[in-house]
Amino acid sequence: MSTEGAWSEGGLTKGRLEALTDGVFAIVLTLLVLDIKVPEIPPAKVSEELMTSLFLLWPKILGYVISFVILGVYWVGHHAVYHYIRRSDRVLLWSNMFFLMAVAFVPFSAALFSAYGRQPLAVRIFGYNQLAAGLCLYAQWWHATRGRRLVDRDLPARIVRLASLRILTAPALYLFAIGFSTFHPIVSVLIYLLVPVFYILPGRIDRHWTRLSGSH
Amino acid sequence: MSTEGAWSEGGLTKGRLEALTDGVFAIVLTLLVLDIKVPEIPPAKVSEELMTSLFLLWPKILGYVISFVILGVYWVGHHAVYHYIRRSDRVLLWSNMFFLMAVAFVPFSAALFSAYGRQPLAVRIFGYNQLAAGLCLYAQWWHATRGRRLVDRDLPARIVRLASLRILTAPALYLFAIGFSTFHPIVSVLIYLLVPVFYILPGRIDRHWTRLSGSH
Amino acid sequence: MSTEGAWSEGGLTKGRLEALTDGVFAIVLTLLVLDIKVPEIPPAKVSEELMTSLFLLWPKILGYVISFVILGVYWVGHHAVYHYIRRSDRVLLWSNMFFLMAVAFVPFSAALFSAYGRQPLAVRIFGYNQLAAGLCLYAQWWHATRGRRLVDRDLPARIVRLASLRILTAPALYLFAIGFSTFHPIVSVLIYLLVPVFYILPGRIDRHWTRLSGSH
Amino acid sequence: MSTEGAWSEGGLTKGRLEALTDGVFAIVLTLLVLDIKVPEIPPAKVSEELMTSLFLLWPKILGYVISFVILGVYWVGHHAVYHYIRRSDRVLLWSNMFFLMAVAFVPFSAALFSAYGRQPLAVRIFGYNQLAAGLCLYAQWWHATRGRRLVDRDLPARIVRLASLRILTAPALYLFAIGFSTFHPIVSVLIYLLVPVFYILPGRIDRHWTRLSGSH
Repeated sequence: MSTEGAWSEGGLTKGRLEALTDGVFAIVLTLLVLDIKVPEIPPAKVSEELMTSLFLLWPKILGYVISFVILGVYWVGHHAVYHYIRRSDRVLLWSNMFFLMAVAFVPFSAALFSAYGRQPLAVRIFGYNQLAAGLCLYAQWWHATRGRRLVDRDLPARIVRLASLRILTAPALYLFAIGFSTFHPIVSVLIYLLVPVFYILPGRIDRHWTRLSGSH
Repeated sequence: MSTEGAWSEGGLTKGRLEALTDGVFAIVLTLLVLDIKVPEIPPAKVSEELMTSLFLLWPKILGYVISFVILGVYWVGHHAVYHYIRRSDRVLLWSNMFFLMAVAFVPFSAALFSAYGRQPLAVRIFGYNQLAAGLCLYAQWWHATRGRRLVDRDLPARIVRLASLRILTAPALYLFAIGFSTFHPIVSVLIYLLVPVFYILPGRIDRHWTRLSGSH
Repeated sequence: MSTEGAWSEGGLTKGRLEALTDGVFAIVLTLLVLDIKVPEIPPAKVSEELMTSLFLLWPKILGYVISFVILGVYWVGHHAVYHYIRRSDRVLLWSNMFFLMAVAFVPFSAALFSAYGRQPLAVRIFGYNQLAAGLCLYAQWWHATRGRRLVDRDLPARIVRLASLRILTAPALYLFAIGFSTFHPIVSVLIYLLVPVFYILPGRIDRHWTRLSGSH
Repeated sequence: MSTEGAWSEGGLTKGRLEALTDGVFAIVLTLLVLDIKVPEIPPAKVSEELMTSLFLLWPKILGYVISFVILGVYWVGHHAVYHYIRRSDRVLLWSNMFFLMAVAFVPFSAALFSAYGRQPLAVRIFGYNQLAAGLCLYAQWWHATRGRRLVDRDLPARIVRLASLRILTAPALYLFAIGFSTFHPIVSVLIYLLVPVFYILPGRIDRHWTRLSGSH
């Protein structure tokens, strides 16, 4: 194991970035459920009141599902970006740190949004949080692929372009939604709900990826 | 390190799925203990009341042990499934995300069940939660093995079948238990207690696995 | 990548056991600090009362340091055991699950001990918790090395014996301490304090390990 | 896979140290956001009071950002140190454990500092916490590189020296800041704010690292 061998272990370095990111996502995802509390009902009234008490929890349960999906979209996006990244450097480390800062903030902005969803301010804060997360993810992709700095030298330009488009679609839609927040907050909310759907459906990048993965 | 080499690193991709899953399980398992609080007793009464106060904690401690075992069953199941998976794709990523959503919900449904165990509704919610987790795990296995999409091409059909049976046994039993919940909730509870026992005991898959692992 | 190749990837299987364990330890270690709260002092009295308020936190800070060290001993022990393990099976998975159950219980038993340290009952519960964790760790070592089931076939008997001794010393001392708890709880406390010191100091296994690691 | 092969897997051993560390950082980073609570406002007053309530959260949000950055600096530092480490031994394991103890303490000392930032005592405690974390990180580097104990034998002395300087700059500055805390706490605060900036900017080590990584 020569010194040169050590330097070329870019995978290890990238591995820790991924481990920290997976850890932050795992915790954020799991903490979301702590908001849903078992209702406390006096023993004599349990049989009549349990159904109603649980029914009143539905906004929290819906919030749990939606936040899980939104965070899932970011995690899958990070996964796809790092699938192509080979090495890491200080700029990547810190872009990822700011990405995680935005991701860890989602439970707060989502709770604010679910509590005050009709207030343009709450709608906007939620949108800006998503915008920040999306742009921090794009910053990593841009930095890594520019001059093929941290990716393979022969990564096709087509993939760089397709992934950029895919990553930037969300921030663009969120910016659009923020613009509507003052006068038509309902339009913003609809856009927020549509973004995850767009990302869960398979895209061209996936087909490319699947084809290549299957051909070895 | 060619581009083709990069695509074939399906292991890495699978690695992050496993890392996120292990993280979520680690947190859910550890958070369970936070429910058990040290009793607060005025100094003058400590020697007489400590034993009683601790004794009153037994339902929480039992709940801790049972939830730990149930979550352990899912973790071991996920581990076994991913032992065979080689690559990952968008469908697998999202099936796993929904699996984690069900897993992270277990502390809530288990707490509800331990608080209102005689109410058919609480018995049913617990059962549906387990059913969802089991089916999301099966969905991953089904998707991965269908046409040997994400597993080795020469994975014997016998292993696919045995694992399917083993994964589907729990949801089948839980469905059965949910059926009993309205009129005989005690039968449901007994089934819930038996399921983990069935999974902790070794099965045919394990024997196969052990034999092959030992023969290299 | 043949099927046989897949089976022999015992490292991966062991890897997830280690990942889950590292996750549980990371969370337990970090949650310990949540018990230490910033004192709330009215603005007018801050300069006179801050020192005293912080001084009153010392038992919690001491508890933090001691729990961190005790958990560190288990983590280092688990690390050493798994350094030798090559494969995993269902018995190992479940022994580890019960080990984690005992480890995740340490914050509770340590808090109980620090709150009611003069009560034989609290001293005993703390001791039994440590005993359980130590025995679960030994169970894994015993199962893995018996007939060289999950370790290398040519693992010297001397290492198996030395590691067994090292792992079993703690449970033996804790059993001893539990015996003293009824009539001389102070002796139990002294033993509890000495155990981590014994484990932090280097032992014969380490020297062996270091020598071999250095010789490749 | 011979026994000797097993011994030389220093990477695995180091891997678990890194995994535990990444886990602790992920949790500490994520828990910081739990301090920021959604304000509770009576429905009738939401539209007038939401802006003000959110504005009052700014010190907590600033604290979140600053703590995230400080912890990011330690994580990046740990990452850089372990980039060079090849093996691990008991001394390294325990130095890292004490490093994590200091890191996990940062949320407390940062909260204390943000609550009582004008009190020399709070300023000092924050400084000592940072000093401890920095020295524990240096202890690992010193132990690993002394006699090239845990790093590659041919690691250039120049890199050892540059990294030592870079790691020790922070503790030196913090010591300086602690010295000012009694009579000019504002100088201490300014130093605290400057340290992360110094670490986010690229240094000579990075350039060296980037050059070598790029040349394989």
